[in-house]
Amino acid sequence: MSEQRILVTYLTQAKDLQKKAEAIAVGMTVGSWTDLPAAKQADLKPYLGEAVGAQVLDTLENGESRGLITISYPVRNFTADIPSLLTGVFGKLSMDGKIKLIDIQFPEAFLAAFPGPKYGISGIRDRLGAHNRPLLMSIFKSCLGLPFDDLKTQFRAQALGGVDLVKDDEIFFADDRAPFLERIRAFKQIARETEAETGKPVLYAANLTGPVTDLTERAKRAVEAGADCLLFNVLAFGYDALHRLAADPDVQVPIMAHPALAGAYYPSPDYGIGTPLLLGKLMRLAGADLVLFPSPYGNVALNKEEALKLAEHLTEPTGTLRKSFPVPSAGIHPGLVPQLYEDFGLDQVVNAGGGIHGHPGGATAGARAFVAAINAVVAGQTLEDASSESAELSQALQKWGTK
Amino acid sequence: MSEQRILVTYLTQAKDLQKKAEAIAVGMTVGSWTDLPAAKQADLKPYLGEAVGAQVLDTLENGESRGLITISYPVRNFTADIPSLLTGVFGKLSMDGKIKLIDIQFPEAFLAAFPGPKYGISGIRDRLGAHNRPLLMSIFKSCLGLPFDDLKTQFRAQALGGVDLVKDDEIFFADDRAPFLERIRAFKQIARETEAETGKPVLYAANLTGPVTDLTERAKRAVEAGADCLLFNVLAFGYDALHRLAADPDVQVPIMAHPALAGAYYPSPDYGIGTPLLLGKLMRLAGADLVLFPSPYGNVALNKEEALKLAEHLTEPTGTLRKSFPVPSAGIHPGLVPQLYEDFGLDQVVNAGGGIHGHPGGATAGARAFVAAINAVVAGQTLEDASSESAELSQALQKWGTK
Repeated sequence: MSEQRILVTYLTQAKDLQKKAEAIAVGMTVGSWTDLPAAKQADLKPYLGEAVGAQVLDTLENGESRGLITISYPVRNFTADIPSLLTGVFGKLSMDGKIKLIDIQFPEAFLAAFPGPKYGISGIRDRLGAHNRPLLMSIFKSCLGLPFDDLKTQFRAQALGGVDLVKDDEIFFADDRAPFLERIRAFKQIARETEAETGKPVLYAANLTGPVTDLTERAKRAVEAGADCLLFNVLAFGYDALHRLAADPDVQVPIMAHPALAGAYYPSPDYGIGTPLLLGKLMRLAGADLVLFPSPYGNVALNKEEALKLAEHLTEPTGTLRKSFPVPSAGIHPGLVPQLYEDFGLDQVVNAGGGIHGHPGGATAGARAFVAAINAVVAGQTLEDASSESAELSQALQKWGTK
Repeated sequence: MSEQRILVTYLTQAKDLQKKAEAIAVGMTVGSWTDLPAAKQADLKPYLGEAVGAQVLDTLENGESRGLITISYPVRNFTADIPSLLTGVFGKLSMDGKIKLIDIQFPEAFLAAFPGPKYGISGIRDRLGAHNRPLLMSIFKSCLGLPFDDLKTQFRAQALGGVDLVKDDEIFFADDRAPFLERIRAFKQIARETEAETGKPVLYAANLTGPVTDLTERAKRAVEAGADCLLFNVLAFGYDALHRLAADPDVQVPIMAHPALAGAYYPSPDYGIGTPLLLGKLMRLAGADLVLFPSPYGNVALNKEEALKLAEHLTEPTGTLRKSFPVPSAGIHPGLVPQLYEDFGLDQVVNAGGGIHGHPGGATAGARAFVAAINAVVAGQTLEDASSESAELSQALQKWGTK
């Protein structure tokens, strides 16, 4: 591993970007260099960061350059975990003026030390027997405070419409009216019943919460109770909690990463961590089988280029890591399915909340409208054509249009 | 607890801040309200958020108002942990346009469910027998890749100068040349020797790293090996990891929170989490005995008002929580001690790196210069007067001045 380097790209500004890169390369590794005696330099050389590039993007009014700098760090500086990685390449640097962490490129030996997704796209497709189409997920209209029976009713309605997955709200921590393991058992039973009726399985993603030290144990109990999938607020608990869940051979269940709190990192042009890295590369490395992220549509949306790059990070060949399912979320209705398909292709999960529950015919009809839309795009049919065979799709297009 | 509310303040912008606050209060709790039937409203009322205030700070060019909004959330919506709290008040909201999380006010019953610092300011003072002065901490010049003997030499030099604490570099994860438990044992032995010589104890803060699932166990082994204090990269591992360390009765050692990665959250005026909350309130709640944060001095510094507010959150009466030591860091040299004392008072740790190692007489002299400066300010003496009795302080003032 000693020759292996990790390449890190930052967006920053300085009078001289190359000089800034050189200062960071030293400052983030051995601390000082030119004033070290030769013997000490020889000792520390293997730990020294190196500036490998500086690319000016524009010149600011104050005469400084704004642009990308790339620094290579020896793999030996890190332990194979995301806390070490992020602390080592951005810990104190994050507090040192305008600088944003954009990308990290890993050598294969470093990647190999991470679990990656335990199931990935192919494992989830196998489980559902759904190989040649985008999947469909719906969310509860809300969870917090709702009586258990209401949640059961909602679950059944969504499942009957033909969704592949139903997920909890991410804020569902205080769940005394419908406790975690009881929900898993109850929804599993309903899923059996609806599968008998529709012929389609449905997976329930239960929100995994609790002390970070108990998560593995709680996940195992969830698996024993029949859990299909776990929703996890990765940034609230830290990437390493996901890593350890994914790496544990007894946690036999796919994990769905929720992007809650991601907006505390990515939206500023000057600070934070870029979305493709934050919700793409690092989520896959740490072991998310599915990753939700803001869709590039709607009022408040992710920049489209970033959303596509994020999805690419989740699905492009990366060492021996399995692929993670991209789940572009928010503002999704059936009329957007052709756009989603054009942008994200076959390997995505179409994820809708209001676009299912807000259907004039209710959640079951809302789900059916999406199923019809997905089948149409995969078959190369227009939604208008498909809507002649699906009253639910026709109603949805009337309500939401096709933009 | 059912009547208790958590008050959350955000900085945001909108045409109508009050209306935005009302939309968030519903959207972040029960999801929808006005379209619910009366029976459902009665069911969900106890979980509903409420807009309690909107304060316009200025009017933007686009006609929108920029200002603070405050929303109250029922305590019952949360479990007593920071992942639940942050996901519940800022999870998806963080991705919804320009909005920054500024402050959270907790009812006492909620505070009481958190551990807070196990030792706090008074516990650390007792351990050091140092009650009536700011403490002094130094850091290794660097750690990564350094031969163990070099670290021992550095530790001894700093300890001989009279510092109260010495801490590891936060990037010190890959430590095969000077492994965690061996460092703790070796520095403990050196501390015994220097205490015999100087009469002053010195505490070593070792960087606690490893899988998040193993941290408690590693902390216990550190305590068995004689650890005085643990340095912890809280944001890299997540607040809950700190919470569980602080709450574990077997982890009998103070914890020092490092602010690594904090710059990914706080510097943007529009997004992220405000520093006083991020590094002040939440660190204390989760159990940090000492908290490092960027000092308000030097080139790249924290806004002074925010730094003072942060320190206030660490030390003001807050339920039954012990106080955390503020450790304003970066750019500190002996000439700044009067300013530090004026700004942060008696209950602070003066923390220096370059200001100790860069002393013309070396690290021991550098530490002595700080000791002389601290004794001077506490005695109401000027540094100029004190420097007549301390050659080391005199040299330091010549090198760095008093600004």
